[in-house]
Amino acid sequence: MKKIWSLLILMLCVFHASSQDQYTLWLRYTPVKDPALLASYRRSITAVAVTGSSPTMEVVRKELGNGLNGLLETPIPFNGNASLMVGTIPSFPALRDRSKELGTEGFLILSTVMNGRKVTVITANTDKGVLYGVFHFLRLIQTAQSIGDLNIVSVPRVKLRLLDHWDNLNRYVERGYAGISLWNWHTLPDYLDSRYTDYARYNASVGINGAVLNNVNANAVILTPAYLQKVAALANVFRPYGIKVYLSARFSAPMEIGGLHTADPLNDSVRQWWQGKAKEIYALIPDFGGFLVKANSEGQPGPQSYGRTHADGANMLADAVAPYGGIVMWRAFVYDPKASDRFKQAYDEFQPLDGKFRENVMVQVKNGPIDFQPREPFSPLLGAMPHTPLMLEFQLTQEYLGQGTHLVYLAPLFKEVLNADTYAQGKNSTVARTIDGSLNNHALSGIAAVANIGNERNWTGHTFGQANWYAIGRLSWDNSLSSEQIAEEWIRQTFGNSPLLVSSIKRMMLASHEAVVNYMTPLGLHHIMGNGHHYGPAPWGNDLPRADWNPVYYHRADTNGIGFDRTVTGTNALLQYRPEVRKQFLEDEKYLLWFRHVSWGQRLRSGRTVWEELCYKYNEGVDTVRAMQSTWEQLKGLIDEERFQQVRMLLAIQAKEATWWRNACLLYFQTYSRLPFPANYEKPDHSLDEYKQLSFPYAPGN
Amino acid sequence: MKKIWSLLILMLCVFHASSQDQYTLWLRYTPVKDPALLASYRRSITAVAVTGSSPTMEVVRKELGNGLNGLLETPIPFNGNASLMVGTIPSFPALRDRSKELGTEGFLILSTVMNGRKVTVITANTDKGVLYGVFHFLRLIQTAQSIGDLNIVSVPRVKLRLLDHWDNLNRYVERGYAGISLWNWHTLPDYLDSRYTDYARYNASVGINGAVLNNVNANAVILTPAYLQKVAALANVFRPYGIKVYLSARFSAPMEIGGLHTADPLNDSVRQWWQGKAKEIYALIPDFGGFLVKANSEGQPGPQSYGRTHADGANMLADAVAPYGGIVMWRAFVYDPKASDRFKQAYDEFQPLDGKFRENVMVQVKNGPIDFQPREPFSPLLGAMPHTPLMLEFQLTQEYLGQGTHLVYLAPLFKEVLNADTYAQGKNSTVARTIDGSLNNHALSGIAAVANIGNERNWTGHTFGQANWYAIGRLSWDNSLSSEQIAEEWIRQTFGNSPLLVSSIKRMMLASHEAVVNYMTPLGLHHIMGNGHHYGPAPWGNDLPRADWNPVYYHRADTNGIGFDRTVTGTNALLQYRPEVRKQFLEDEKYLLWFRHVSWGQRLRSGRTVWEELCYKYNEGVDTVRAMQSTWEQLKGLIDEERFQQVRMLLAIQAKEATWWRNACLLYFQTYSRLPFPANYEKPDHSLDEYKQLSFPYAPGN
Repeated sequence: MKKIWSLLILMLCVFHASSQDQYTLWLRYTPVKDPALLASYRRSITAVAVTGSSPTMEVVRKELGNGLNGLLETPIPFNGNASLMVGTIPSFPALRDRSKELGTEGFLILSTVMNGRKVTVITANTDKGVLYGVFHFLRLIQTAQSIGDLNIVSVPRVKLRLLDHWDNLNRYVERGYAGISLWNWHTLPDYLDSRYTDYARYNASVGINGAVLNNVNANAVILTPAYLQKVAALANVFRPYGIKVYLSARFSAPMEIGGLHTADPLNDSVRQWWQGKAKEIYALIPDFGGFLVKANSEGQPGPQSYGRTHADGANMLADAVAPYGGIVMWRAFVYDPKASDRFKQAYDEFQPLDGKFRENVMVQVKNGPIDFQPREPFSPLLGAMPHTPLMLEFQLTQEYLGQGTHLVYLAPLFKEVLNADTYAQGKNSTVARTIDGSLNNHALSGIAAVANIGNERNWTGHTFGQANWYAIGRLSWDNSLSSEQIAEEWIRQTFGNSPLLVSSIKRMMLASHEAVVNYMTPLGLHHIMGNGHHYGPAPWGNDLPRADWNPVYYHRADTNGIGFDRTVTGTNALLQYRPEVRKQFLEDEKYLLWFRHVSWGQRLRSGRTVWEELCYKYNEGVDTVRAMQSTWEQLKGLIDEERFQQVRMLLAIQAKEATWWRNACLLYFQTYSRLPFPANYEKPDHSLDEYKQLSFPYAPGN
Repeated sequence: MKKIWSLLILMLCVFHASSQDQYTLWLRYTPVKDPALLASYRRSITAVAVTGSSPTMEVVRKELGNGLNGLLETPIPFNGNASLMVGTIPSFPALRDRSKELGTEGFLILSTVMNGRKVTVITANTDKGVLYGVFHFLRLIQTAQSIGDLNIVSVPRVKLRLLDHWDNLNRYVERGYAGISLWNWHTLPDYLDSRYTDYARYNASVGINGAVLNNVNANAVILTPAYLQKVAALANVFRPYGIKVYLSARFSAPMEIGGLHTADPLNDSVRQWWQGKAKEIYALIPDFGGFLVKANSEGQPGPQSYGRTHADGANMLADAVAPYGGIVMWRAFVYDPKASDRFKQAYDEFQPLDGKFRENVMVQVKNGPIDFQPREPFSPLLGAMPHTPLMLEFQLTQEYLGQGTHLVYLAPLFKEVLNADTYAQGKNSTVARTIDGSLNNHALSGIAAVANIGNERNWTGHTFGQANWYAIGRLSWDNSLSSEQIAEEWIRQTFGNSPLLVSSIKRMMLASHEAVVNYMTPLGLHHIMGNGHHYGPAPWGNDLPRADWNPVYYHRADTNGIGFDRTVTGTNALLQYRPEVRKQFLEDEKYLLWFRHVSWGQRLRSGRTVWEELCYKYNEGVDTVRAMQSTWEQLKGLIDEERFQQVRMLLAIQAKEATWWRNACLLYFQTYSRLPFPANYEKPDHSLDEYKQLSFPYAPGN
């Protein structure tokens, strides 16, 4: 007996050690700690029956086995006399009527009585739906919720829930801060890294159902036969998890790998080449999702090179994949060097094309008009293309939000965009309703998020980056979830259910987005970061050949004031929004410098002048990060030492860099305001010149 | 009681799962399986006492705690009434006399009686020596050896046992096949990845005591103040494990980051710049090891640009670091485009400089005269510089030996070189004795190995790559160990002590080096791989601007025969060896085509002609890989499924590529021999033209 106890103690140590491997993300399945809850779960789940034998149902069995054995600390038998019954609707004739609520991906989790026994049923119309239900059920246990009386119907609001990987064929990840690409193209298709399976599993657990494997700055080589074999191998791994693969298509591929002399979308040879290519792809990958295209943007080739429109280009590709059920996602991220205001250009180019795209084309719109800044007004295009299904593009990788080292929980940013009202069809024409297709009755709907993962052991580099991957999956499935709900789910699954842990970490996470806005770009400042790598502050930047690549283009600080006049006295970009929206943006000081050039001395609602408010906000950002540090310090001993130390070091970097942003930006803007810092202001520890001289030739991701 | 048992069973599952994480390399510390042996270990080790409180002794405590708790499945108390006593010699007055056997790094493990109790003592003159002893003691248990009656003295033969990292500041690893660099320069010095500690720990466990952190194709930026802070942070992590850091120095750094107009080693400003830089480095890193330099080679700057010699350059740097005990490792890997035979050049340039280097300079010589080929004759320089301590350079990363996907155990290659006799001081002037300093009474001695590790989860990509990291450490410590002994140690620590596992895997490993020689470059062929990435066969390669970059330069096949005449009728490179060595190389058919151009029809010892023997050897190589596959298949169920499948997939790639090498090379050489393949020969599945057209634009490591 004594030996058994010491063995137990030892194994607990080992278990504890292994639980620190952050590779397992939010699917840790560590034992339920609350004894009463554990007992009740064990009473509810005495045996499991899974009907069906598809690869997806095998995944269901494996996940339930691992999950329940881990969570309930006891092996759960899989047999017919089950209290947990899992399978598609045909396995449960009594539930036939509920089929119509569930669609092709939704699920039902129901506490009911069958054959006189109290049972829990997880069912759906498809195997994939069952898998989603199983992950949801396990999440209930992971997050210490009751499973005694369930009647949960959950159906995704958005059809396409994708990760976009900006991964090059040499495994370099553009804007990647978590190592190199997961896809080892060189050893594919013969070597299947276990990461590929785990990637699919983690995605499925949060409802992500597709992946664009390669960078939008695309390389045509991915479309050659040798690489399509590699893509097919990944598709085979992903398929049981309900994940489809998509590819970024280089518009000029017919020339680069097809031997043609043009890529003109109206040229017959070009059209035939793409049709042949689609046929070749679908022969290898029958459920291939389709193409993502960045065209005529930042040097990428596109239809405009041949005097054609984006619609001509997109439709040509759409025709090629239509026979197989494929789609085209055509990006609206364009900005011509000659345009008067980069803000306006996506709208100017794409709004007139509304209604001119094939049915299987989606126009993919970044959440804001510029480029994934800490805070942007929603893109005006989101309220301007009623006849076109729009795919909303978010960025998980924190290109402009602290990159690999800042704790920034992005769900509040996502929610701010989704909840914004475009007024396109009157009040309550939210971005969420635009994107989920309900506003304009589109059959296609989707959210794409630029992935933040790589081959680092814990996938995202920063442990808290995992929360953003988690959040975009959950929000794409159900945009009614709050940032707080999602944070709480993730914390409980990742760190455990201790109330102090949950409340403290949640507080840090929920404060973090406003913090980064404040210490980088308060009051509507934007695009004032370092050139190229986008690391650190450089509001003085003014040496790039294109005006709209330079920070000074965006903040327009001078001795009179600061901000970009986008009202009628300026570029009038505001006109791209409905009147109700214009009014809001002009009233909401969060967006002040996005739309107006204001004098340094102008009083704001706080009673502070613009200059004082700028100082106040920058300091508030720094203070919030310091408060996050204090909160974290109080968790010592409640979290395994390795994670505790890692996050502590990262928060210290964040605090240092927040201070750097504040000091460098305020010192620079002070050269225009010519006003002193308020008395309570912490003095900069370097001069403006010193900040200007910092250089980071090997900053990652560029 | 029943609950406890089910808990136990569950935890065993968890334990089993976690043990599959190949991140833990050979330090798995899984429980001893043999009950009798476990009982005897437990009887021997009831409690541990560790004397001393340095950071190194803290590491000793932690390692013994984790190791013994894991291996013996029971918590071992650390207290004074110990049966395992650990500390430096002053803790054991009775053992004072044994101090002189141990040097600064050696250790003693002794079963003895103290205060009337039977105890095991692990001791050394230094804390570092104790740590090595502790790792050795744990290895005895891991490999199921008796610990009842020990009297082990182990002292390293070689002083400097280094890994050279060819890692760039952007984390790209030249010739790296295991992800990107471990060193995240961007987040250093503020973020200390737990990998850094684990790296030091694994190195210490096999006796490695230094690391050159950056690529020999060096970037001067590593010597700037910001980067030296980062280097110092790593040095601080490594120090308790006895690992010193070294840096590759770019010879032109005084110009690139120092603002000078010359890097002439005899220029006073240049000398002062390096002296100042050394002072700056040692202020941050008091135990900094020194510089590694690649000069006037493959485009790197060097003293010859100023009409100075390698000795001038090396001595200038040596003077800069001498006051602090630093050294300079100056690479002899040079080949001038004008030389008649690349083979001869390192000797021609460096042999005349013997005796002209400072005492703290080592000349670093690759094991062969060309460049890490599957088999090379030992470098003639290894027998030609008696007055200079030579550092032997091996390559762990398999640039020319299958890169990331071939199972090639390199200890037989290392041993072949170390055992070679240079006859420099008559018989038994082996390379081993040259390198360990005993032949010429050098105080400095060293082996450097180009690392094969990166940020992939399991460090080396291929699980069996771990064995090469392990082997170089063990061999550098003790070059009398056999390849077989080292393989057996590693297998037992990595896969367990099952006799079938050990014998099967050992058979595979020991056959693997001869296999790769046979399926790539049999009979002394060399340098016939693809250009740039060095992946796959390309004996036809002939389009590079320098003759000695092209495969045809090396094999010299024509209708008369094949091979490079390096005898007196050719380039006479053989003259760089002693007469006894010349004779051996001419007699040993393993080196045939390294030294002679022979006719296709010439009979060899086997009775086969050269052409027949070439066909025979290529086929033998392929057959060996297939036999490795069969052996592995028999281990199914004895190894966790993940590793089993991974190695199975990799062996399939190796078999495919071995066949590719054989077919492509034989088809190509057949165009000269104009002879048929022997009847029993497997027909190539592609034409020579098809092989020639293969292209791999994104092959890794280039």
